[in-house]
Amino acid sequence: MTTYGLLIFEEAEELDFVGPWEVFTVSSMLRGGVDTAVLIAERPGPVRCAKGMRVLPDHGLDDHPPLDVLLVPGGKGARAIEPGNPVVTGWITRTAAQAEWTVSVCTGALLLHAAGPARGRRVATHWSFEEELEERGDVTVVRDVRYVVDGNLLTSQGVSAGIDSALWLVGRLHGPDHSRQVRRYLQYDPAPPYLADAG
Amino acid sequence: MTTYGLLIFEEAEELDFVGPWEVFTVSSMLRGGVDTAVLIAERPGPVRCAKGMRVLPDHGLDDHPPLDVLLVPGGKGARAIEPGNPVVTGWITRTAAQAEWTVSVCTGALLLHAAGPARGRRVATHWSFEEELEERGDVTVVRDVRYVVDGNLLTSQGVSAGIDSALWLVGRLHGPDHSRQVRRYLQYDPAPPYLADAG
Repeated sequence: MTTYGLLIFEEAEELDFVGPWEVFTVSSMLRGGVDTAVLIAERPGPVRCAKGMRVLPDHGLDDHPPLDVLLVPGGKGARAIEPGNPVVTGWITRTAAQAEWTVSVCTGALLLHAAGPARGRRVATHWSFEEELEERGDVTVVRDVRYVVDGNLLTSQGVSAGIDSALWLVGRLHGPDHSRQVRRYLQYDPAPPYLADAG
Repeated sequence: MTTYGLLIFEEAEELDFVGPWEVFTVSSMLRGGVDTAVLIAERPGPVRCAKGMRVLPDHGLDDHPPLDVLLVPGGKGARAIEPGNPVVTGWITRTAAQAEWTVSVCTGALLLHAAGPARGRRVATHWSFEEELEERGDVTVVRDVRYVVDGNLLTSQGVSAGIDSALWLVGRLHGPDHSRQVRRYLQYDPAPPYLADAG
């Protein structure tokens, strides 16, 4: 039984949390529904994401179940708004201290840095914010890898990288064979177009 | 100026529409915000997706802007519920007839078959529903390709395949270089884990 809590906030990048959400919920389904995934926000009511999608959280900061996995997405909210919100950073600090795993996607690493869990650690983030994160100090940004595991901290490169890191995590928690089954359900055999200049 | 309309309904699979949503909205952002992407549902209020996420639509079936691109996601709603809903299938029939492109992800192809646009066409769908779709008749299911373009119909394999097909579409609409810029923003350099049995 694994409980996944995905923090959402105004200007969170949609795919940053929906990619892992899909991985975690499919993982639970394939395990007979024993796991739980919830969206958590500071306030009730719709959260307006970075690209305009409005999503309803399942819980507030004070009424969610104990989390085995805390996931923080990126987006403008993670790098420019929530780092200055002590209600959210304090919650992240406390929740990460009790969770088995703390995970970020994209610029969620900047929010984890502001809240503490990324301090003194090796981390990945979106390619366009690697320097900015490094300049904040007391953190080592690892370039050119899809995600970084440092202790119980799992940080991912930009946006789509959360799918890969979430698949890694469910394999770590429930076995590589299980992760491969999740990948097969998602039919995740990526084929990005236009990799060649072939007209 | 391209207007993308993504249909959502109860039991729509989350990543099926959020993957393309991210691609279309990043495409618009990189083009200076000239394009529009909206979520459309039969009724106002939250739509509960296949894995429990609750999303608010932007428009109903009768109050959305004219669509250049109609996208239909998959999930249990697309294969077992909405095919029997003449309000939704009738809307799809009429809207697809006026759109420049009609797109499905995963088992959205079964809903497009019920509504008409996939009849007599070559299509892709989720690997576990290829036979079921073929048995419905008057359709050719193409296996082992990520997505299929037949005229102005673009159909995709399961769940994650919508990211690849949406990237193909923005390249077709706005050029391969533009699609590559969207892919770079999404940092879509996939690295699925556990591809080897390496312990």
